[in-house]
Amino acid sequence: MLRGIHLNPVKPARPVNPARLVNIGICGLGTVASGTINILNRNKSVIDARSGCNITIVQVGARRDNIKCDTSTLNVTRDIFDVINNPDVDIVVELIGGTTVAKELVLKAIANGKHIVTANKALIAHHGDEIFAAAKAKGVTVAFEAAVAGGIPIIKSIREGLAANNIEWLAGIINGTTNFILTEMRDKGRAFDDVLKEAQALGYAEADPTFDVEGIDASHKLVILASLAFGIPLDVKKVFTEGITKISTEDVNYAEELGYRIKHLGIARRSANGIELRVHPTLIPEKRLIANVDGVMNAVLVKGDAVGATLYYGAGAGGEPTGSSVVGDIIDVARTLLAAPEQRVPYLGFQTEFVTEQKHLPMEEIETANYLRMSAADKPGVLSKIATILSDSGISIEAMIQKEAKEGDAIVPLILLTNCVQEKKLMAALSKIETLDSISGSVQRIRVESLK
Amino acid sequence: MLRGIHLNPVKPARPVNPARLVNIGICGLGTVASGTINILNRNKSVIDARSGCNITIVQVGARRDNIKCDTSTLNVTRDIFDVINNPDVDIVVELIGGTTVAKELVLKAIANGKHIVTANKALIAHHGDEIFAAAKAKGVTVAFEAAVAGGIPIIKSIREGLAANNIEWLAGIINGTTNFILTEMRDKGRAFDDVLKEAQALGYAEADPTFDVEGIDASHKLVILASLAFGIPLDVKKVFTEGITKISTEDVNYAEELGYRIKHLGIARRSANGIELRVHPTLIPEKRLIANVDGVMNAVLVKGDAVGATLYYGAGAGGEPTGSSVVGDIIDVARTLLAAPEQRVPYLGFQTEFVTEQKHLPMEEIETANYLRMSAADKPGVLSKIATILSDSGISIEAMIQKEAKEGDAIVPLILLTNCVQEKKLMAALSKIETLDSISGSVQRIRVESLK
Repeated sequence: MLRGIHLNPVKPARPVNPARLVNIGICGLGTVASGTINILNRNKSVIDARSGCNITIVQVGARRDNIKCDTSTLNVTRDIFDVINNPDVDIVVELIGGTTVAKELVLKAIANGKHIVTANKALIAHHGDEIFAAAKAKGVTVAFEAAVAGGIPIIKSIREGLAANNIEWLAGIINGTTNFILTEMRDKGRAFDDVLKEAQALGYAEADPTFDVEGIDASHKLVILASLAFGIPLDVKKVFTEGITKISTEDVNYAEELGYRIKHLGIARRSANGIELRVHPTLIPEKRLIANVDGVMNAVLVKGDAVGATLYYGAGAGGEPTGSSVVGDIIDVARTLLAAPEQRVPYLGFQTEFVTEQKHLPMEEIETANYLRMSAADKPGVLSKIATILSDSGISIEAMIQKEAKEGDAIVPLILLTNCVQEKKLMAALSKIETLDSISGSVQRIRVESLK
Repeated sequence: MLRGIHLNPVKPARPVNPARLVNIGICGLGTVASGTINILNRNKSVIDARSGCNITIVQVGARRDNIKCDTSTLNVTRDIFDVINNPDVDIVVELIGGTTVAKELVLKAIANGKHIVTANKALIAHHGDEIFAAAKAKGVTVAFEAAVAGGIPIIKSIREGLAANNIEWLAGIINGTTNFILTEMRDKGRAFDDVLKEAQALGYAEADPTFDVEGIDASHKLVILASLAFGIPLDVKKVFTEGITKISTEDVNYAEELGYRIKHLGIARRSANGIELRVHPTLIPEKRLIANVDGVMNAVLVKGDAVGATLYYGAGAGGEPTGSSVVGDIIDVARTLLAAPEQRVPYLGFQTEFVTEQKHLPMEEIETANYLRMSAADKPGVLSKIATILSDSGISIEAMIQKEAKEGDAIVPLILLTNCVQEKKLMAALSKIETLDSISGSVQRIRVESLK
């Protein structure tokens, strides 16, 4: 059935106009650079037919060679700064990662009048505003589709496709590693540590997995999406970030019993009270499409006031999927290389002068429903005490699971779903519950979102 | 939780540059025009902040008034041709539908040097090539995001977001009416006719439902998507089209038992043998995300050689969702109003000179797996005869459901899933099976796609 094959769909009817020669300089030669080079080579005819340009790699800057792509025909230099100083280079593709050398490289390239394409989410999240200001002063483009959700054209969709909308909220599975771990925990009942080790062996997770499993990578991507959605400056510090290390197989199973899936979401929402930015494990009704996005795949749900809910799904990482976005950006930039800056899509989707600070809603004021799991003594009156504490705080119980104690067990798990309640009210109530003699240990709490 | 609210996110720091005034003339005042006008009015500040232009409706041409939007502040003219002759109008938004007056209107508007935004799938599918040629000669844009899948930015995603890819295939739920009917049949066990009546009452289906339920509307959309994906001229005649009128609740239930959902798909695929374009009911494995797209919602799955499979989901119809795409196009066109034509995205994603005929694969040569349902006499040897006919034709049986006859029934239903087989081979085998004495009536056949 619909099986993959590689073909060149286009036989140029005439040679591409040599006046539209566009020269690319690539910095870095890792996985994404290899994917990018392979695509530019393999799909040259379709890329030129779409762009109307003759797009050619004239230089690659990398400290080392790479076996993932053929560099035999490429001009490879060991000093990446040679690339940005090469007068023949029109577009610099920054694929070295990190925020120190990459920042210096990109700012110098801009100073040299080069357009920039980058896949570097940390760079954009931390230094985007400074980079965009420099680029604007110089009249060049900075394109970064590959920085969020790999091959999914989510930045283009928000920035251009949904440009008519006031974006109300977005919620995304924007880290493949955590989604792979949560999927395996659910599908196979495996423990977090066990799956993490496999993810590391498969190359989905780094040796130091903190960046992924603690949500730092997702927070970089979320802050970029939020700026595009709401027209606010990039500010990573405003993102509340919670990882998945405390999620147990028990939680995954109880969530399932209640009709939910646990996903690690990045959520940005704008209400009359302010803008919320948060990354945390979340129970989602299993009927939602995004609840069924499994494995290393990514998906972003975007709610606009005119369009309603839309969803974008695809590979969030990998050389060629990410390279697909890098090359898509190269084509966009190539097409408008000589256009007046105001004819290009602005960096964050809003004209720079309209990117303004808006009220930020601190975490303690955010309202969510909640999944609570606690270990209760198997004796009369416990539930009544808990219910009283919750009720006194204005919190109601929407669903509950309480099972009979196993023979010999003095402790039973008690699972509650609350209504939508302000973070600080819930926290106060949980502190009281945790002081009860009949409750052992701390209460496990996971936020719940209906995503409607 | 993430609930909808309407807000203006942007407070302009300074007035928009009056030199970037962009004047819109709208033809038509139906559902989509009302949605478009409402969005342009309600979201003016965000639209101007994104586009960097002051986008203003200067004239609306409509034979009648409309209660779905406020026209009190609008300059409404009864002759739609006044709009395209108005020297103040920069962009003509064609929302009258149909292919006769709309074609004349659009071609005259182009001749007058107007840029075009349209939601008219029939117009683009039937006359797109002629319209694009006229627009190219005049150096103006024709934008038609709203023509396919309503508010989903699927045209932008294929044409720009995935521009680096050789698109291998795409498959879409691109008609909300048929998806609503199939969803109700599955969820509630209702019969086709019964659900169709409800769909008509709800306004999802027209009084004459042929256009939707026979797949004509979907074929218009498919031919547009295929041209964008493969760089081929628009040719509706090449689409094989089969509706959903013969799908019974029994089929829906047996499909479910086999682990599949029945969806009405538009499929475009390019292989070494040629390009296939087909609209028909399809069994899809229930685990696929697109199998879980229910109700009136649309979704398109696109497989690129670099990015892999990506999916785009959202509302496929309705005034504001479709208006979201119309206004998104207006913003794109406004931004590049004064750009050189080669700096704009080409009409079909490929530079016009690269849009070329490619070999078309006739339906009888297409290969699919198949669901077969037949009424067999409840006596020994029947299955063996059927298996022999299939096996002699090189067709293998991958799965089967045969239930015991109800008491007194001489006929039992027999359901088979075949391997992937060429259409003409299957048809020949089915003819033989239908001549068997032990088979009553014709064989129900629905194609199966794995969409991997």
